[in-house]
Amino acid sequence: MPDPGLFEMMDTARALRVLKPDPVPNALVERLLHAATRASSAGNAQNWAFVVVRDAALRREVGALYRRASDVAAKVYAARDRPPHLTDRQWHGMLVAGAHLYAHMGEAPVLILPCLQPRDLPPADRFPPEVSLADEMTYLDRIRGASIYPAVQNIVLACRALGLGTVITTNHLRLEAEMKALLGIPTAVDTFALMPVGWPVGKPGPLSRKPLAEAAHRDRWGKPWAP
Amino acid sequence: MPDPGLFEMMDTARALRVLKPDPVPNALVERLLHAATRASSAGNAQNWAFVVVRDAALRREVGALYRRASDVAAKVYAARDRPPHLTDRQWHGMLVAGAHLYAHMGEAPVLILPCLQPRDLPPADRFPPEVSLADEMTYLDRIRGASIYPAVQNIVLACRALGLGTVITTNHLRLEAEMKALLGIPTAVDTFALMPVGWPVGKPGPLSRKPLAEAAHRDRWGKPWAP
Repeated sequence: MPDPGLFEMMDTARALRVLKPDPVPNALVERLLHAATRASSAGNAQNWAFVVVRDAALRREVGALYRRASDVAAKVYAARDRPPHLTDRQWHGMLVAGAHLYAHMGEAPVLILPCLQPRDLPPADRFPPEVSLADEMTYLDRIRGASIYPAVQNIVLACRALGLGTVITTNHLRLEAEMKALLGIPTAVDTFALMPVGWPVGKPGPLSRKPLAEAAHRDRWGKPWAP
Repeated sequence: MPDPGLFEMMDTARALRVLKPDPVPNALVERLLHAATRASSAGNAQNWAFVVVRDAALRREVGALYRRASDVAAKVYAARDRPPHLTDRQWHGMLVAGAHLYAHMGEAPVLILPCLQPRDLPPADRFPPEVSLADEMTYLDRIRGASIYPAVQNIVLACRALGLGTVITTNHLRLEAEMKALLGIPTAVDTFALMPVGWPVGKPGPLSRKPLAEAAHRDRWGKPWAP
């Protein structure tokens, strides 16, 4: 299998919201899952789970739920001001592509839901008495994303390398209990994204990003990065 | 600059906790920051900020704070059972390397703290009346990790491609207020990781991961993935 350059892939892995319904071979989906599970996770616990929805009827149900969950998102975005770092064209392009995905999520040939199972705590009789259990639970909750979104980014980059398109969406979290019931996901398992995967329509444009000097600080906050 | 293959980099990007104190050129740090900011973020808001600590005295202070914050982590890990998917050697290797990093974080030539500034809400007079502000705040809090850990993973992969080592650590969150005060990070800004970056000691071993069938589900939870 070809292995295109990492930096080129990162520099061109645009969020793609308009995808063809054409099928994606299982071998490519397998490659995405392999990529996801190469990421690190806290304590190498690998508590992740990836629910891959390929069944067409089930995708329609997931899509209908995503559409309903996106109604709120659409209203909030419509009330937002355009961020100053995006042009009118970029901002409206994103809103239009987002609205397209709200209506067509279920038509993407593959839907991936990255999840995390709760991480075990040490056995109660060995839990360090000087550590607060409540503090430890708060801490574990705070760091959860560090054990799943790196895997999600590996899926994004692997899609790019395979010529596939995807985007990290989270609107379904507004109706997460219903989504979990639909897919039989246990109550204790959390979902972190809903990623449509398919062949992109058209030729993706370039990324639009702020200058690095606005994002990076040297030594202390407020001292701009300069190489 | 050479651009090694994406899949090879993902397959070999091991978490590296033992790093040399030797300097890392600014041009390479700049390449890491460029890679980080190619990731996507919710609404392309790019609310991230990367605090890059290079000053040796400041690194020592960050390292001392990390060491103190890691005391709790060390106790919790010592009380944990070895996860069944790791061998004794893998588990103890990770604990020993972790303990090394607890003591030597401040000696890594570069420390990166990925942060997020709070995302603006729509103006109050345009906030959709049918949407609960409290629900929207809860939702935004829930999805924050999706706008920073993809960038973190780009740093991990870019390090691998440049021959550098790094690891995503989070222990400092146990003393986050002190860390933010030390680096002048505003109260409203959250930190998500502390990443040491340096040249690795020794030759990194292979990744250890569970079989894919234990991590992926087909269509519904509990139905194992089979390609």
